[in-house]
Amino acid sequence: MNGAAALVKTLLANGIDTVFANPGTSEMHLVTAFDTEPRIRSVLCLFEGVATGAADGFARISGMPALTLLHLGPGYLNGGANIHNARRAHAPMINVIGDHAVSHRRYDAPLASNITALAAPNSRWIKSVDRSEDIERLAHEALAASFGPAPGPVSLVLPADTAWNKASAHPVSPVSRPALRLPSADEIDAAVAAIRTAKKPVILINGTALLEDGLVAASRLEAAGIHVLTDTFVARQARGAGRFAPDRLQYFAEMALAQLEDVDLMLMAGTKPPVAFFAYPDKPSSLVPEGCRPLSLGGADTDSAATLQALVDALDAPDSPPMPGFTPPAAPTGELSPGAIGESLARHLPEHAIVADDGVTGSLAAFLPTAAARPHDWLMLTGGAIGMGMPLALGASIAAPDRKVLCLSGDGAGMYTNQALWSMARENADIVTVVFVNHSYRILNIELYRTGAGNPGPVSQGMLNLGNPEIDWVKLAAAQGVPGETAATAEAFETALERGFAHDGPYLIAALVPG
Amino acid sequence: MNGAAALVKTLLANGIDTVFANPGTSEMHLVTAFDTEPRIRSVLCLFEGVATGAADGFARISGMPALTLLHLGPGYLNGGANIHNARRAHAPMINVIGDHAVSHRRYDAPLASNITALAAPNSRWIKSVDRSEDIERLAHEALAASFGPAPGPVSLVLPADTAWNKASAHPVSPVSRPALRLPSADEIDAAVAAIRTAKKPVILINGTALLEDGLVAASRLEAAGIHVLTDTFVARQARGAGRFAPDRLQYFAEMALAQLEDVDLMLMAGTKPPVAFFAYPDKPSSLVPEGCRPLSLGGADTDSAATLQALVDALDAPDSPPMPGFTPPAAPTGELSPGAIGESLARHLPEHAIVADDGVTGSLAAFLPTAAARPHDWLMLTGGAIGMGMPLALGASIAAPDRKVLCLSGDGAGMYTNQALWSMARENADIVTVVFVNHSYRILNIELYRTGAGNPGPVSQGMLNLGNPEIDWVKLAAAQGVPGETAATAEAFETALERGFAHDGPYLIAALVPG
Repeated sequence: MNGAAALVKTLLANGIDTVFANPGTSEMHLVTAFDTEPRIRSVLCLFEGVATGAADGFARISGMPALTLLHLGPGYLNGGANIHNARRAHAPMINVIGDHAVSHRRYDAPLASNITALAAPNSRWIKSVDRSEDIERLAHEALAASFGPAPGPVSLVLPADTAWNKASAHPVSPVSRPALRLPSADEIDAAVAAIRTAKKPVILINGTALLEDGLVAASRLEAAGIHVLTDTFVARQARGAGRFAPDRLQYFAEMALAQLEDVDLMLMAGTKPPVAFFAYPDKPSSLVPEGCRPLSLGGADTDSAATLQALVDALDAPDSPPMPGFTPPAAPTGELSPGAIGESLARHLPEHAIVADDGVTGSLAAFLPTAAARPHDWLMLTGGAIGMGMPLALGASIAAPDRKVLCLSGDGAGMYTNQALWSMARENADIVTVVFVNHSYRILNIELYRTGAGNPGPVSQGMLNLGNPEIDWVKLAAAQGVPGETAATAEAFETALERGFAHDGPYLIAALVPG
Repeated sequence: MNGAAALVKTLLANGIDTVFANPGTSEMHLVTAFDTEPRIRSVLCLFEGVATGAADGFARISGMPALTLLHLGPGYLNGGANIHNARRAHAPMINVIGDHAVSHRRYDAPLASNITALAAPNSRWIKSVDRSEDIERLAHEALAASFGPAPGPVSLVLPADTAWNKASAHPVSPVSRPALRLPSADEIDAAVAAIRTAKKPVILINGTALLEDGLVAASRLEAAGIHVLTDTFVARQARGAGRFAPDRLQYFAEMALAQLEDVDLMLMAGTKPPVAFFAYPDKPSSLVPEGCRPLSLGGADTDSAATLQALVDALDAPDSPPMPGFTPPAAPTGELSPGAIGESLARHLPEHAIVADDGVTGSLAAFLPTAAARPHDWLMLTGGAIGMGMPLALGASIAAPDRKVLCLSGDGAGMYTNQALWSMARENADIVTVVFVNHSYRILNIELYRTGAGNPGPVSQGMLNLGNPEIDWVKLAAAQGVPGETAATAEAFETALERGFAHDGPYLIAALVPG
């Protein structure tokens, strides 16, 4: 058995069976090793940012890491922005980065670069497997590191000769997945004591607290007078009819601080103290208001659902009030606004749908009306690096082929990784992609004003405008094998959405919204 | 004046007037600073890999660095692969990477990452401008570092508060550009002595030796019995009628070693010892044959044209023999092969055209027949990271708007940075893009065999195949505002190419070639 086969065997023994790949010459032995293991599902991506974003989506839905297969330093760089997002999502992921043979490194060939240096900042763990006999041991280390203490992306550099050389036959035993940390009784006691003396306590949540069980506990804390807020951007949140819909911390710092006015205790479970997304001249960076006591019950390494349940028990919080059932709004009419799109989604989102949302502020209008749509999961842009939506949708769909996936993307964001459309078509992934076509980087028009950068002249206006030429999204999708249509009115969007959800396989709707 | 304006002023004083940008919130002050300077040309790119590839093409043609404007760590990562290529091309480039305000850094906001760590491996110089008063000084340092000793990309991290704070008014004096190194008389004497005792000497060249004057000297060395070879991939080479066409070192190691059989002296000017692009089991990495003496006359920090001229003078080499004039082949007919495409190019390439070639092996068939086409410049894939062709063409066209640019790209490579088409349309860049559509990563089919990775099964075959679904390149271009057509026969390609070259602005030809 060569090193490549040993790696595949080790991963399979640990339940890793999905690869998002863009291989090159240095990864050929790994590619043929996949041939010998029919249990491995390999998804070809035409750009590495698609592969890494898909691995993130896969992990958020399945809970398991997927493999990405990247071609040397440049392949890693191409996938890097979505690895950044996955790091912020605490999504486990194993990036296998092919490298030159160890013997070839000293020659500084054209594709050579210092992979471990450039990949380290976004890797929770990174090592190069320079000897075939180390492959199982380091694969185990990589896998364990991807699970925690807080989950995240790891990088295993695999030189070509490690892959093609004979590996010794080590016994393969599965890595035991560590449980997330539980808060101690002392931590819970201290939190209860703080709550009892607080005038206006809130709890900011993220992580497992946003899954179905955690939300039940959260709703009981809300009923006990502790206002529950989620982070602005979360990796995954269970939502819809019958589920508690906590408030979401606002994106813009001044609006978040207004939300938190007079709050004197901020508990945090599965997250850390909130901070403004960007700095602005003469505005605070911290979103913990003055006079408010922050009290952490653990960050991403902690089981926040269990933390909330422990608080509920300690406080003897009232039972969860009944949650609203499925309450679809009336069909929207007239101009196609983001709000109208949200109303259509609230009507038509299929049960157990997954929403992959690349929006920064734009998709809030779709988020709010869908609180009482049919039960679904919502995945968000955790690291702020746009170009995540379509890849994330692809990965989520591979993880849950029986669930309909809805991708929400801006037009600027969508262009970053539009190659994901091709993989959706190849895999016949059941994804409806809605592109908010406003022909602009709309958020930047707001931010330009907010940063006090001055009045935009023609150059600035040009830099924020995508309308010259206008991108024809339906054509762009069709070129890659994805059918779709344009919707310019609320009525047309209703029809398009129904058609998209009824369609088996990928579908794209170019939603023309005001700029 | 704020820091952003001070940076723009400093750069303009040094002749830097072109920016390839994809800005975000942290770069807003820089964007509005461009508004105050109409001499700055800002080109919006819908993905950072387009911006960095374009800056590379701009530098290769103009000799001057362009600015790229990138949004924090993820923006840098997105542009990283083409910065890798630019590093290998020795193309000067100033990457301005916007960062969070210095005061905001400690909060670890979602978009925060260790930019200097991740950008260092591909930067010849990298510093963060943490105080507005340092901005001119560090901009000068960055510019000087981009020029040498060997030119290349540098990175200037610009925190948002450095951009918006008041900068002190330092006097701005231009950076003096250092000349490339000249070889010493002793080095030339030693080379001449070695040549006089060698049975079969060659000289491997790159850098300025490949421009018009250098090639005249090279042809005289060839006439003096020193076989001249270029590196396999070069940043820029003057070619065509009336110009000496040196042999090109072959891509595949065994073919390169066959080319070099019995060579006992390898001089090198403007380059370093040749090395196999990849390692293969049981094959050598070095392409300096056994028994051959390597003798360096300087690497990328050296003026190789002047080196060749010094050798010519010392050897009293014969005059340059007459070079063939424009000798177009007959119009190709029948099946559209890469060779037929080369013949059409040899017939129709306009005078002073620039060819931006993303090919690894595929475009060799176009390279060889165009040796006696009308005079032109050929730019190659220096770092092996595919996805460079269209961005490179864009930047070359911005640098030389009066020259026709021809982009040659594989379909796999073209998908990486297809967003470049949109910028071509917006800038009405005079570029004909020929995509070799073979629905596969063709090179990998060869490499899979060569690496001895075994017989490809269905998984491997799937990983190398782009034909399911087939990408409609004409539609993909039209979606981004670029007209074009498909050519499936040699006759159709002839017509398409004539039409493309006659067209003012971007045009795309999807050339259907055998897989």
